[in-house]
Amino acid sequence: MSTQPSAPPLIGKLVIIGVGLIGGSFAAALREAGQVGRIVGVGRNQDNLQTALDMGLIDSIALQAADAVRDADFVLLGMPVGQMPGVMAAIAPHLPDHCVVSDAGSTKSDVLAHARVHMGARLGQFVPAHPIAGAEHSGAAAARADLYRGKTIVVCAQAETQAAAVDLVNQAWSFCGGVVQNMDVATHDRVFAAVSHLPHVLAFALVDDIAGRSNASQLFGFAASGFRDFTRIASSHPEMWRDICLANREAVLFELDAYQQQLQRLRGLLEAEDGDALEAVFLRARTARDQWIAEREARSRAE
Amino acid sequence: MSTQPSAPPLIGKLVIIGVGLIGGSFAAALREAGQVGRIVGVGRNQDNLQTALDMGLIDSIALQAADAVRDADFVLLGMPVGQMPGVMAAIAPHLPDHCVVSDAGSTKSDVLAHARVHMGARLGQFVPAHPIAGAEHSGAAAARADLYRGKTIVVCAQAETQAAAVDLVNQAWSFCGGVVQNMDVATHDRVFAAVSHLPHVLAFALVDDIAGRSNASQLFGFAASGFRDFTRIASSHPEMWRDICLANREAVLFELDAYQQQLQRLRGLLEAEDGDALEAVFLRARTARDQWIAEREARSRAE
Repeated sequence: MSTQPSAPPLIGKLVIIGVGLIGGSFAAALREAGQVGRIVGVGRNQDNLQTALDMGLIDSIALQAADAVRDADFVLLGMPVGQMPGVMAAIAPHLPDHCVVSDAGSTKSDVLAHARVHMGARLGQFVPAHPIAGAEHSGAAAARADLYRGKTIVVCAQAETQAAAVDLVNQAWSFCGGVVQNMDVATHDRVFAAVSHLPHVLAFALVDDIAGRSNASQLFGFAASGFRDFTRIASSHPEMWRDICLANREAVLFELDAYQQQLQRLRGLLEAEDGDALEAVFLRARTARDQWIAEREARSRAE
Repeated sequence: MSTQPSAPPLIGKLVIIGVGLIGGSFAAALREAGQVGRIVGVGRNQDNLQTALDMGLIDSIALQAADAVRDADFVLLGMPVGQMPGVMAAIAPHLPDHCVVSDAGSTKSDVLAHARVHMGARLGQFVPAHPIAGAEHSGAAAARADLYRGKTIVVCAQAETQAAAVDLVNQAWSFCGGVVQNMDVATHDRVFAAVSHLPHVLAFALVDDIAGRSNASQLFGFAASGFRDFTRIASSHPEMWRDICLANREAVLFELDAYQQQLQRLRGLLEAEDGDALEAVFLRARTARDQWIAEREARSRAE
């Protein structure tokens, strides 16, 4: 695919509000695919925006989101979920009729609820979405055009969402190399509480527990690669994960309770020195994980 | 270093009982360093021993450990900790006076206790040790000569351990590229319960919990790289980890309780929607982990 296609690009003017890893990589991928005309960045952190400009992720910086969106074709909300209500309220009155707004938040029920309150007459132009491209690094400096290649993009179209808006979002993510899957917001949030939000809380909890001990430096001194990988997600963005936990509170609490029950069960087996039952749990876990990894690798090879 | 040094090798005859990842890599590393004459493998799994022979990790297979050790200079116990009492009892009466026995078990108090019971008059020739070279793969096929390069090797010499035996073990691991650190067995077990054994239990627990649900395939379908890394250690050897948990039961129970309290505390913060406190925990965890990673990488560069 040429970077200068003769056909017009999918998106004329793209506005990224929050040019971090997610928004910056979306910009970079669309640019590489030749599917965007002009990219304007908006954000709280001027140093980060300057980095995005220097890297060529964006063509210019706008000071006010409201001004930037007036003639936009696509607006991506790339900021933490906690900031979305304010941003939605600020841009909604200024959006053109044809402009599509989407987000990349890790929780979806709350984002949709915010949109219902703050997008007003523009609700049908808003498409909740979640690219599953985890990375513990954040900021524009970490952005890269291939971040979404082969990655799942969950798109949560609602009954009231305009079909053309959903189409544009699906196409944009496909041009980024993503694999779009549709899902309702409630299912999305329950699924990700289990396979993403809970593990993040568990990893943060372990590292904080160890860091708070009087012999923390001795403990870290003997931690090895197993600990490194187990805790990789504890290097994630604290504010973002605070917002995710609060936004998906009910589902995360449900998962925390289920996990505590599971730990209590394993504790009982260990207390009772029931080696057979412990080994059965470990074996079941290993078998399930190895099968998942094998399928994942087969999918990845097929791409 | 030449693989055929003119000086005699450190170890004339090496017997590896349990030629898995750990024992096989020890053999391969000493061979590469030119510090071993002949290597004999003993084990329960004949296919695995044949693989070790085919790979050149060992020079021959012995059917009985007792026979193999009669003229050995160094015996490495590379099997799961649960099998050590039987093996110690079988070899102790047949060990020559000068032969050093060491192990590579992930727990040390129990191994020492077994040695006190089963090594008899040979107790002074036994040096408990633990190479910190985690890998979720097991078996001779996974063995490699560079597994221990730059890795910490904990050596737990006791008051009754012969100084010459400790020296030989230290030298052997140094030739494998390891960095030897001395520690008493009780401290070893407390430290590793926190930074290794608990994380393994937590990872097994999470995968087993998800695998047991009616929507398991949907959940695994959306699990991404964060889940993959968090659960990598859940692909570890179930029997080995059963033995580790049972052997270090008290310390693992202590860590499980501390962790459950930590989760209960975080649950309370989430229940109360205390975003500031949650973010503070996440930030403390990220800061501690990032500092640990930075120190780890600096150490690795310095080697």
